[in-house]
Amino acid sequence: MIPESIQDAEATAALDFTVECVGKPDIPSPLDGIRFVDEAERISVFSDVRILQSQAAAGRPLPAFEPAGPRERLFHDPAWTRAGIVTCGGLCPGINDVIRALVNTLWYSYGVQSILGFQYGFRGLIPAHGLKPVPLDPDVVDQIHENGGSILGSSRGPQDTEGMVRTLERLGINCLFGIGGDGTLRGIRDMARCVQEKKRPISIVGIPKTIDNDISFTDRTFGFETAVYAAAPVISCAHDEAKGAYNGIGLIRLMGRDSGFIAAAATLANSVVNFCMVPEVPFELAGPRGFLRALEQRLIKKHHAVIVVAEGAGQQLFSDESEQRDASGNVLHHDIGLFLRRKIEEYLTAERVEHHVKYFDPSYQVRSVPARGTDAIFCLHLAENAVHAAMAGRTNVVIGHWHERFTHVPIELAVRQRRKINPRGQLWQSVLAVNRQSEYWRPAVD
Amino acid sequence: MIPESIQDAEATAALDFTVECVGKPDIPSPLDGIRFVDEAERISVFSDVRILQSQAAAGRPLPAFEPAGPRERLFHDPAWTRAGIVTCGGLCPGINDVIRALVNTLWYSYGVQSILGFQYGFRGLIPAHGLKPVPLDPDVVDQIHENGGSILGSSRGPQDTEGMVRTLERLGINCLFGIGGDGTLRGIRDMARCVQEKKRPISIVGIPKTIDNDISFTDRTFGFETAVYAAAPVISCAHDEAKGAYNGIGLIRLMGRDSGFIAAAATLANSVVNFCMVPEVPFELAGPRGFLRALEQRLIKKHHAVIVVAEGAGQQLFSDESEQRDASGNVLHHDIGLFLRRKIEEYLTAERVEHHVKYFDPSYQVRSVPARGTDAIFCLHLAENAVHAAMAGRTNVVIGHWHERFTHVPIELAVRQRRKINPRGQLWQSVLAVNRQSEYWRPAVD
Amino acid sequence: MIPESIQDAEATAALDFTVECVGKPDIPSPLDGIRFVDEAERISVFSDVRILQSQAAAGRPLPAFEPAGPRERLFHDPAWTRAGIVTCGGLCPGINDVIRALVNTLWYSYGVQSILGFQYGFRGLIPAHGLKPVPLDPDVVDQIHENGGSILGSSRGPQDTEGMVRTLERLGINCLFGIGGDGTLRGIRDMARCVQEKKRPISIVGIPKTIDNDISFTDRTFGFETAVYAAAPVISCAHDEAKGAYNGIGLIRLMGRDSGFIAAAATLANSVVNFCMVPEVPFELAGPRGFLRALEQRLIKKHHAVIVVAEGAGQQLFSDESEQRDASGNVLHHDIGLFLRRKIEEYLTAERVEHHVKYFDPSYQVRSVPARGTDAIFCLHLAENAVHAAMAGRTNVVIGHWHERFTHVPIELAVRQRRKINPRGQLWQSVLAVNRQSEYWRPAVD
Amino acid sequence: MIPESIQDAEATAALDFTVECVGKPDIPSPLDGIRFVDEAERISVFSDVRILQSQAAAGRPLPAFEPAGPRERLFHDPAWTRAGIVTCGGLCPGINDVIRALVNTLWYSYGVQSILGFQYGFRGLIPAHGLKPVPLDPDVVDQIHENGGSILGSSRGPQDTEGMVRTLERLGINCLFGIGGDGTLRGIRDMARCVQEKKRPISIVGIPKTIDNDISFTDRTFGFETAVYAAAPVISCAHDEAKGAYNGIGLIRLMGRDSGFIAAAATLANSVVNFCMVPEVPFELAGPRGFLRALEQRLIKKHHAVIVVAEGAGQQLFSDESEQRDASGNVLHHDIGLFLRRKIEEYLTAERVEHHVKYFDPSYQVRSVPARGTDAIFCLHLAENAVHAAMAGRTNVVIGHWHERFTHVPIELAVRQRRKINPRGQLWQSVLAVNRQSEYWRPAVD
Repeated sequence: MIPESIQDAEATAALDFTVECVGKPDIPSPLDGIRFVDEAERISVFSDVRILQSQAAAGRPLPAFEPAGPRERLFHDPAWTRAGIVTCGGLCPGINDVIRALVNTLWYSYGVQSILGFQYGFRGLIPAHGLKPVPLDPDVVDQIHENGGSILGSSRGPQDTEGMVRTLERLGINCLFGIGGDGTLRGIRDMARCVQEKKRPISIVGIPKTIDNDISFTDRTFGFETAVYAAAPVISCAHDEAKGAYNGIGLIRLMGRDSGFIAAAATLANSVVNFCMVPEVPFELAGPRGFLRALEQRLIKKHHAVIVVAEGAGQQLFSDESEQRDASGNVLHHDIGLFLRRKIEEYLTAERVEHHVKYFDPSYQVRSVPARGTDAIFCLHLAENAVHAAMAGRTNVVIGHWHERFTHVPIELAVRQRRKINPRGQLWQSVLAVNRQSEYWRPAVD
Repeated sequence: MIPESIQDAEATAALDFTVECVGKPDIPSPLDGIRFVDEAERISVFSDVRILQSQAAAGRPLPAFEPAGPRERLFHDPAWTRAGIVTCGGLCPGINDVIRALVNTLWYSYGVQSILGFQYGFRGLIPAHGLKPVPLDPDVVDQIHENGGSILGSSRGPQDTEGMVRTLERLGINCLFGIGGDGTLRGIRDMARCVQEKKRPISIVGIPKTIDNDISFTDRTFGFETAVYAAAPVISCAHDEAKGAYNGIGLIRLMGRDSGFIAAAATLANSVVNFCMVPEVPFELAGPRGFLRALEQRLIKKHHAVIVVAEGAGQQLFSDESEQRDASGNVLHHDIGLFLRRKIEEYLTAERVEHHVKYFDPSYQVRSVPARGTDAIFCLHLAENAVHAAMAGRTNVVIGHWHERFTHVPIELAVRQRRKINPRGQLWQSVLAVNRQSEYWRPAVD
Repeated sequence: MIPESIQDAEATAALDFTVECVGKPDIPSPLDGIRFVDEAERISVFSDVRILQSQAAAGRPLPAFEPAGPRERLFHDPAWTRAGIVTCGGLCPGINDVIRALVNTLWYSYGVQSILGFQYGFRGLIPAHGLKPVPLDPDVVDQIHENGGSILGSSRGPQDTEGMVRTLERLGINCLFGIGGDGTLRGIRDMARCVQEKKRPISIVGIPKTIDNDISFTDRTFGFETAVYAAAPVISCAHDEAKGAYNGIGLIRLMGRDSGFIAAAATLANSVVNFCMVPEVPFELAGPRGFLRALEQRLIKKHHAVIVVAEGAGQQLFSDESEQRDASGNVLHHDIGLFLRRKIEEYLTAERVEHHVKYFDPSYQVRSVPARGTDAIFCLHLAENAVHAAMAGRTNVVIGHWHERFTHVPIELAVRQRRKINPRGQLWQSVLAVNRQSEYWRPAVD
Repeated sequence: MIPESIQDAEATAALDFTVECVGKPDIPSPLDGIRFVDEAERISVFSDVRILQSQAAAGRPLPAFEPAGPRERLFHDPAWTRAGIVTCGGLCPGINDVIRALVNTLWYSYGVQSILGFQYGFRGLIPAHGLKPVPLDPDVVDQIHENGGSILGSSRGPQDTEGMVRTLERLGINCLFGIGGDGTLRGIRDMARCVQEKKRPISIVGIPKTIDNDISFTDRTFGFETAVYAAAPVISCAHDEAKGAYNGIGLIRLMGRDSGFIAAAATLANSVVNFCMVPEVPFELAGPRGFLRALEQRLIKKHHAVIVVAEGAGQQLFSDESEQRDASGNVLHHDIGLFLRRKIEEYLTAERVEHHVKYFDPSYQVRSVPARGTDAIFCLHLAENAVHAAMAGRTNVVIGHWHERFTHVPIELAVRQRRKINPRGQLWQSVLAVNRQSEYWRPAVD
């Protein structure tokens, strides 16, 4: 769906990486009847033949991912394994699916019967917070995927790395699974480093969680598919509200701090959207190329309009006050949704154009629904492969997806840079083709 | 579902009413194969045997509704009939179902082939607004029920009665159907009076629209069933968000200006709601019997809470500034949802209780969805009976539903008083039994 | 929705009934803050003023229901109460809601903490089947309403009345709640009689379950609303399949052994249905007034058709073989759906009309979904009132709904006769107005 | 999701292919602001580094796809272009999305305003069938994606290639878009060859439609995602039905003639499935390793079971009667669903095990729903790229998806072989890990 942006990421990233292992895997896997992954196999990062050929011509090695999957030799002895699971950051559809599949794969495939869930994110790893780890088994997780959210609870913000690692040691945990976004992944990277310095045989494996679908070096993240689906009824209501009033305007703020993938996808999947604004395409409000005039033209012609705006869009419209960050370290954006509502109302009132703005902020409803269908299957496979990776001793790694294979991606690589929409690429051009906002509005794209 | 409140309404209302007719029906109905309503039939308002017997003992007539339904004799000749439809006020699930069934019943059952839809409410009846009436036929309305909103658009506020009646005369409309709430019904009542003074044979029939389900003398209004259903996924998300954070609080504002039927029903239908606040049950925030302390107790015990608050709840908490009204004449309430959020955050911060409030205002999403299943059927029957009523010459009347029959209710009676929840009755007691908020909180009920 | 049929039932039934009680209620209710039902209150069966007046004129008492609801005086002491729950017959949306609300009301409102669920219907009451009763409490039932079916399981067919009553005695159960249809209600009536003969103080209360909505003397049964909604996507698919092929025919068999309420409601709620067949309206297949010719005409004109047929429709088309019954004692009908498919294909093949019949039998999918929204609330209220009734000592009674009140209906009365559609009444006439099948087909109605 | 099977397909297919073009593109594209695809770009079929390196070492060229997307130079002049669209074979979610996006892209992006839809598949291209082509424009297709099916209708089976090509010539169509499966693609390949022999400048582009997701050289086909989602409620009902009866068995037949991707995905996405049968894994019914005994064991232990069977599973169980084919040329399989139901009932009856089989065949309901969310976006992108391909003169080609890029795949290659599940690969192993059928049953896999 988003081809060029991946190629761009490829082109700009240094691609020299290896996957860390806590030790040499030499324990036979209990899995049978299965085709194990050949340890020598690698998945090329690039698929562009010209790049492949020039690398070959220059005698340079091809940047490539280690494929995820079950290994014939494990590092951790299942009988002695105690696993931990922690979920951090904002909610996202599918967290419970991942937890459930981690537990079931550990339990049934590997026979690991000691599994602890840490409560409310990293803080659950610091004893001072008084949050007791929850024992997990297949009965406990049996139906958790029918609800959104995380049964373990979540929280934002870092905790003391040393302290968290001490908890792992004290509890005898040798496999930790962390589900979270940028901040979380950086946190577990620090834990992995700390563990390494202490020379402890603890595997730390991440499952990247970003509803915005903007993690690099993975073509997909869990929850995005469900989020796109969950936005549909809200947009449909916004359209009906917009048409229900004279010069009605349905204004929907969707998630997307640094990238507009959800807003773009929601526009493509819901043909009633007339304007779409994303962080990657700056725009002006006032003036002949500004949005407000375009909106006015649309109202005069059609008497209603539906606008989808990503939360990180239009940040350049705010005067530069000192940057603020949330507990996870994400830059706190000014609320473009409410700002836009105010500006629209001010402008149209000044222009004496009757108008009725209906404002929608469905963020929670989009991120708190349970994952469905193929998205739930994706969660399942991520978790299975995370367990395979950890049992084989991999550490400081997340599970990615690339060229239709699950992969091991060093955390360092995954958090280096966020994927973004290319305004000249097919995704954004498709958005413009579908909503035809250019009939009214052509913000400058450099 | 809401027995006592109906009985209460009965008890307090004067019940001496007759249905107006623009003239003597003497044209044979084109409907065949059908059992016509016997003009002598009446449906008792009361069903309590003690009331029935005391009325009989006292020789007083029983207050009773004229049943709705097809009549053997019509007043308006279908061949000469031109019908108009207007939709006013806020959106509600099912408006398009009603429009569609009005058109189809007029067209197919009676052979009326001249039907005009007025745009954007009453303003569409005033030529100065430049809104051309839209010709309606079965093709135009064929799929409109698949969307929420109103294809005719809506608006709030009255227009000049004389001017609107003149438009009916000029266009030769002899049957006007108005879909709307209190304000709208008063508006069409005024038109009916004006028409009567002018001795014009124009039938004016209303279909009561109140998503709050609070019109008197009808045990049900269209859209309510769908609204209860549409609130469910939002409440489920609020619950998952509340559980996803330490001391998470899901706060959901639902519709209900003067009555809390939607909030109460949403609480009954979604077992995750812990606190429910409605206009009928006043409460305090501060102090030992106040809500904030109760919430704190709940958080200490369970670490999360879900709160449903009707928009008209807790109005006594606001200092009496001058009352404001919207364009429809409804008293504009202070926004209890945002107020409650602020008060909760202030209180818990002062008490040094960590908390994460997630605020939901799904009003548009609850009212802009299409009507479904049995609710759509209810819309259909309302429209059919409105057409039967108009063709038989009834006027100044709305279609009600009472003792499982559709009825003719004089507008005067329907708008006299709003139905409310009885805090000692079964509905509210059932709410308290289900959410068990009394374990933490017992607001004084007089 | 279905006015006349209720009046018909009234008119034809003898209406002299009283509610049985296992003894004189003299224990104070633990409920507080509630308005108890006045024991003298009665709800008139009739609402037609002419009937009411003629009864009064003749000095005859008005047939009336005892209203359901909480009583100030109980017969059973909550502290000594042990309750049993049994679910029988086919599945229906909402059974788990009823079980859940029975348990919660017993537990929280009355403090009854000994509750047993019998497994797989009446057979769970016969020790020889080796099915241990399941202890129920609020934790066990907390989320059961999120799934369809019955957590207790169900079965068809009677068991030995004596044996079942002995089980109640042996287990010390003094309140039994039975959820089921005609057969089940007759079964618990027999148990109630047996208990009475033995002079045991055991209350036996039924909650009528019939997805067909055809129990007499209750204007509504649980699950019907959900069933109508659940049929919608299937009918929509049938329509798309029918239009997807040249002369495509979507044929949908819906439930309705003796009455066609679901088929009629599905037709009203889904405007794409072209033909609707119900048990109450006999029809012929062959000949000039037969269905097959009508279908052919429709295909020639529109090239597709959607047909909804109730399972009990057209039984007169089958030659009278010996009647068969299922384990519940219901007459086993010939399968009209498959029969119709064969006849359509034979006829159109003989007529050399190309055709593609797509057959749908969504019975399980319509009855096995969870109850939703207002239907779930209805389940809740039924269960609350069943508990109130049992605790107050009522027995041999089911909870009904009449004139917007919950009522106590003697089982004898409830099972006397099934409600049916009146072919000349408003419901069926509305079906004909909506699907306009009369343009092609006019089966004779006597 | 299905990595190895793709690699297997790669390994076994000869990979020497080029994309045909009806002539040299030399007309400037009207699209602006867009990054055109570089004509020299190629996407490697392989991503396995060992294969890439061995090809390079051997000096062999890398098999590679031409990327799809907008070209700077077109072959067809938009002003002179007349496009045709035809949909063939069984329904699949998303057909209307594809039609809609073809029309909108032609109309708005390229300015092509003459577009014809052929009715009921290939037969609409043969004048003798009397089916007039339907003019298509953005208004006609505006809301068609809200319904399943195909607004053009469909049919199975080939028509005379010459005759169809003559129709294209006569109507002056220079771009034909065919949406369909194997048979359809072979049909349009034949048309492309015929056109080539006649040296006509007509581009013929296919969009592969297979709900089974089993087309080679494309990692995804439209409708599959929606189908997996649509199966969920049916499986949930089957589970509730199975648990509702003593030894209840929910048996669900899903699509999948030659591959079991839908059945496998439905098992992964719905954790209640206990047994999954696919064409790729043969099995026996009788004997110690047979299915029936396994089912019996499960019933004894759990008293219910849910079985998902792909329509093409277990074909080896049928004695080899003469092979039959449907009008599309697909081998007609014996109905494993009904066969299995009979065998289960016979076996359990013989074993005197009480049982209640509930049979579900939701095929139509799974394939006739509208495409949703990301699946609808996939349809959109397929159609956009089909238009880009045709306008640039490509022919005898389908739009594929590979390594997250849309590609041009010669039809010959796409229809060469069907993708299948590898029983030792991750997908099937994941199915076994999730449903744990191996606890009861281990059919021999070679």
